[in-house]
Parts: sequence; C-alpha cells; structure tokens
Amino acid sequence: MPAKKRQPLVILYTGNGKGKTTAALGLLLRAWGRGMKVCMLSFIKETTANFGEERAARRLDIELIPLGGGFTWLSKDLEQDKALARQCWDLCKEKIASGAYDVVVLDEITYPITYGWLDVDEVIVTLRDRPPNLHIVITGRDAHKKLIDFADLVTEMREVKHPFTSGIKAQPGVDF
Amino acid sequence: MPAKKRQPLVILYTGNGKGKTTAALGLLLRAWGRGMKVCMLSFIKETTANFGEERAARRLDIELIPLGGGFTWLSKDLEQDKALARQCWDLCKEKIASGAYDVVVLDEITYPITYGWLDVDEVIVTLRDRPPNLHIVITGRDAHKKLIDFADLVTEMREVKHPFTSGIKAQPGVDF
Repeated sequence: MPAKKRQPLVILYTGNGKGKTTAALGLLLRAWGRGMKVCMLSFIKETTANFGEERAARRLDIELIPLGGGFTWLSKDLEQDKALARQCWDLCKEKIASGAYDVVVLDEITYPITYGWLDVDEVIVTLRDRPPNLHIVITGRDAHKKLIDFADLVTEMREVKHPFTSGIKAQPGVDF
Repeated sequence: MPAKKRQPLVILYTGNGKGKTTAALGLLLRAWGRGMKVCMLSFIKETTANFGEERAARRLDIELIPLGGGFTWLSKDLEQDKALARQCWDLCKEKIASGAYDVVVLDEITYPITYGWLDVDEVIVTLRDRPPNLHIVITGRDAHKKLIDFADLVTEMREVKHPFTSGIKAQPGVDF
C-alpha cells in the first residue's frame, strides 16, 4: 500500500489479564497476511522456548527473538541484570533502526523498565525517532506512565477470571 | 499431545478496548503452530472481507468464516435478523459438534446475544455439551453475565487510549 496512507502507531497492551502477547501475535499474523515484514523481541522468554508461536513463526518465516533467560531468575546482581537488559535493548534498537520491518513487537519490555534496568526516556526517544511507517507494539504489565502517554493506542487487559486460580494448568496451543 | 493433559477451556475476551479479535487470532496462530485444527466464525464480518487475517488464513489453511453482512446494517426487521442469526449459529453448532477442531473461535458472538437474536442459554448448553478437548474462544463487547460466569478465562480489554479518537484512521495490517 502507498506509504502516504500509513500512519505508524505505537500500540501498548498492558494490564494484569491474559491476552497481551497473544494480541501482539494476532497483530503479527494480520500484518504478515498483508505481506508486511514483522519481528517480535521477547524480553522474558527463554532462548530455548519452542512454544506454539515459535513453531508457527518458523513455518511463516517470522522472526521471534527470545531475549529472555536472565530475566526469569533474577541474578540479584543489579549491575549484571542491567548489563544483560542493555544487550537485549541494543538488539531492539538495531532492529528498530534497521528499516527492515513494518511491525516490531517489544514483548514484555515493561518489566526491565519497571525493574530499573532500562531507562524509559531512552526507550521513548528510540520509539519517537524510529523509521517512518514502522508500527511498534509493546506488551507487559504495569506499563510506565510515560509509555502510556506516548503510545497512540493503549488497551488494558484486565483479569476478570483466570483459570490458573481454579487449579487449571497452562494449556499448550492456548497459553504457550 | 496426549488428551489427558488437555483441559479444554472457554476463553472470553470482552470489553470496549481493542485487541479482542486480535488476541483470538494470536491464539489461533499459537495453536496452529502446534498442529492443532482451528477455526474462527465471525458474526460481524462481511463475507467479502479480505483483511490481513483472511489473507494469512488462506496461506495457513486456517478456516476463517465470515458470517456477517446482515449484522452490520440492521434490517429493522427483528424476525429477519433472528432468522439470519439462527442460520449463523447453526453453522457454529455444526462446527463445534463436528469434532474436527481443537479450537473454535466465536468472534463477536456477544452482539447477536445482546440484540436478542440468540439465546444465551442455548449458547451455553452448546458450549457445555461440546466435544471433549475442544477449546472455545469468544470475543465481543458487553458479554452477557451468564457467559462470564460460564467461561474459564475472562479478560476485559479496557480502552485506555484509542487512536481513532485522535483522528487516526484504521491501519491495514494492524486493525484489519
């Protein structure tokens, strides 16, 4: 489609309910269906993850990049966590600046911001100065107020009822 | 995966925010990635729709069935609307009962229920008596209380900020 019709958006899915990363995946599918180039960088996901979305992404030739490992078990060494977060963020910046994508998802980036490993102002500057026509999707709980203010679209996924609290385990193909 | 590990869920994405159908699409992608058989029936979508999700679905051999047309412009003839809703619902029941799927999405089915075209109790009986191991995803605003009570997982997508209210148009690949 002609670029003039494009209005690049920053979309934020936050809140404590389920569906944030899932909605980002749906958006990737929709964009991919239109021949757009898409990429998801996941801050929390283990690099060995082989969930439904990884399996799908390989078949679709969509880049899902797990940055995770270190974030799921905190090292209790703030400097080490910060260094790892910075490495991950550097890769995000590289992907954003590359101009190679129509949609980039920063999955669960809210957590390293909340923990003080990433500077929210630096993230916003990167989003603001991104290549034209690049949509950005951000997911994660407790989004920083500055991110909410900066985003064009914000949905709070609010937990009304969660099956895990009824003792139902996470379901393959549904939860991961 | 062995059936014993499966706990079939009824998942409800409701609320006035964006991301409900998008999350359902993400869940389909995830399930498809695991080789599960999936299907989405959309109550509001025009039968001529050729959005990003339709284009993707064709390439993935996923069934997305638009039931829509008649619902977007009300006929002002309640009996006619009811008859059309019933036809659509009959197809949903057929798909659910077929045993051919692991995940069936009833996209925006809350609207015909709200409008009084479909009986919520009949919908719930169909969900309750569905084949074992079938996950159901329901989307749409203003979900009936009985649906909320019946579902295993309920997320309210709450609108915090919507780009359309800032005069930004719906974006291909993002919104449709």
